[in-house]
Amino acid sequence: MTGIKQKLLSMVEGDLEKIEAALEDNLTPHLALVKETAGHLMFAGGKRLRPLLIVLSARLCGHENEFVTKFASIFEFLHTATLLHDDVIDGASMRRGKPVANALYGAPVTVLTGDFLLARALRIAAESESMRIIEVVSGMTEEISQGEIHQLIKKGDLTFSEDEYMSVIRSKTGVLIQGACKTGAILADAPPEAEDALSRYGDHLGLVFQIADDILDYTADSRELGKTVGADLKEGKLTLPVIHTLREATPEDRARLEAIITNADFTQSDFRQLLELMDTYGGIAYAQNVATEHVRAAKEQLRRFEPSRTREILEMMADYALNRRA
Amino acid sequence: MTGIKQKLLSMVEGDLEKIEAALEDNLTPHLALVKETAGHLMFAGGKRLRPLLIVLSARLCGHENEFVTKFASIFEFLHTATLLHDDVIDGASMRRGKPVANALYGAPVTVLTGDFLLARALRIAAESESMRIIEVVSGMTEEISQGEIHQLIKKGDLTFSEDEYMSVIRSKTGVLIQGACKTGAILADAPPEAEDALSRYGDHLGLVFQIADDILDYTADSRELGKTVGADLKEGKLTLPVIHTLREATPEDRARLEAIITNADFTQSDFRQLLELMDTYGGIAYAQNVATEHVRAAKEQLRRFEPSRTREILEMMADYALNRRA
Repeated sequence: MTGIKQKLLSMVEGDLEKIEAALEDNLTPHLALVKETAGHLMFAGGKRLRPLLIVLSARLCGHENEFVTKFASIFEFLHTATLLHDDVIDGASMRRGKPVANALYGAPVTVLTGDFLLARALRIAAESESMRIIEVVSGMTEEISQGEIHQLIKKGDLTFSEDEYMSVIRSKTGVLIQGACKTGAILADAPPEAEDALSRYGDHLGLVFQIADDILDYTADSRELGKTVGADLKEGKLTLPVIHTLREATPEDRARLEAIITNADFTQSDFRQLLELMDTYGGIAYAQNVATEHVRAAKEQLRRFEPSRTREILEMMADYALNRRA
Repeated sequence: MTGIKQKLLSMVEGDLEKIEAALEDNLTPHLALVKETAGHLMFAGGKRLRPLLIVLSARLCGHENEFVTKFASIFEFLHTATLLHDDVIDGASMRRGKPVANALYGAPVTVLTGDFLLARALRIAAESESMRIIEVVSGMTEEISQGEIHQLIKKGDLTFSEDEYMSVIRSKTGVLIQGACKTGAILADAPPEAEDALSRYGDHLGLVFQIADDILDYTADSRELGKTVGADLKEGKLTLPVIHTLREATPEDRARLEAIITNADFTQSDFRQLLELMDTYGGIAYAQNVATEHVRAAKEQLRRFEPSRTREILEMMADYALNRRA
């Protein structure tokens, strides 16, 4: 699947350059330390998925100018803010192959830099002078924090259901990706049906991205992933592959699974056993099927737009969301 | 000085009731835990200074309706968000006479509840559909986080100057109080001179409040204060009384001061010695004089308004800001 990544990257190369420049231009804190802390994570090879989505969505609706790239920064700033706070909260050690910001700059500076980025994102949204964009951006931010808390409350809860999981990932990941697509359409002053289609595309795409992330946490190579495999389980986060496996397992296997999951100090051999049980009950395959259905539904929403290079890129992004290796 | 507090409270009783109701009505998270965590601090007897200021500022400009109270919530939510994050960052144990939220709900939920309140504040600001209010609120939020980081960077730095101190307290405390007064004027559609006067009043008042807070950290009774006296110094925060004392001390006394300040485990006897040196060099008196000048300047700004009950309350608030005991 490296093929699709390379092809995608070559098709959005020019956009990515402009996005990088906009992220640098719009960061502008008074203090060098804030720039350093935010930049440590933000310029460590993120995919720029969210800013790309706003640029491409606006373009699909026939709109293009430098302001789109500026407003694209909003979504990368918000995303970075949530990652900075997440890493403080989760006590993770690595992100994108580097030590997390809080390991280098301390939790206090990291929390406050996250706050700065949240505020900066909303300030840039305000500069759009579009009430709808301001509403979308402030609404998303409210939703994300609640999704994170919902996930936190349910850590280690073996009754966490697929429905609840879907609701959590929609809040914590989906709304931001959906918001990027919607904002692109709003900036383009697109008709309601086009805005609605892009919004639904973003909703499906967001779910695909998070489910794929949760699959990678079991299947990836730690070095490729840039963080530790199995980290979700270590933190007690139950994701779709595990939820399905727990649901399908015989009482005996379920008891074995529960023992591993609830033991924060599970060993490598426990983890291998869990992977085997997941394999037996098709936990990964099930999650992949759910995600595949959302890839299909995402692409379906794009059909109402004329075929174009931009539409092709957005379709490829849905495929890439599921089939990436990191 | 209990007299002025009682008189003030009786004059704003009706407003305070409406503010309490608006805070409850506008919190509205999906999750009970978020309400509990936010409410633990927010409904623990805060002074409601910021919401009162927006209500009174709007009224001074001849404007009054239920939306003012709603938008007043913005400022209490932002204030609570910063306190929640501060308590996580500072590792404080008590606030308003109760254990801090992070001691009860853990740092993760507390950080995320702070994020929720930040977002909620900006969402309510968006509902004003006033671009100016949205700009004021998002700008303030950006400024506050930077002020906090600036303070953090300078912890334990013996060269921290009065100018830097004033700049930090303006960012971390002043802009929010100033923003409340300014927003009241904007809601009232007040003429530029009136908005400007209220904005300056708020600037001076914010400085008075923070300087008084910093004085109380040395002079108050821990029980009255609801948190530990001497906490700033324990955290390495140099405030005006100490900055002045360091500046005025003989080289010999300065060396003694520095030894106490840089020792995180200073004893009760060290602390008493510091208080004596502060007395010798008039550290508290100096800070009180600076604050008194800002009380005068704050009241000066109110002179352009006709005498009224509301103006009287705002004048009393400036006096109270300096002369309170907690």
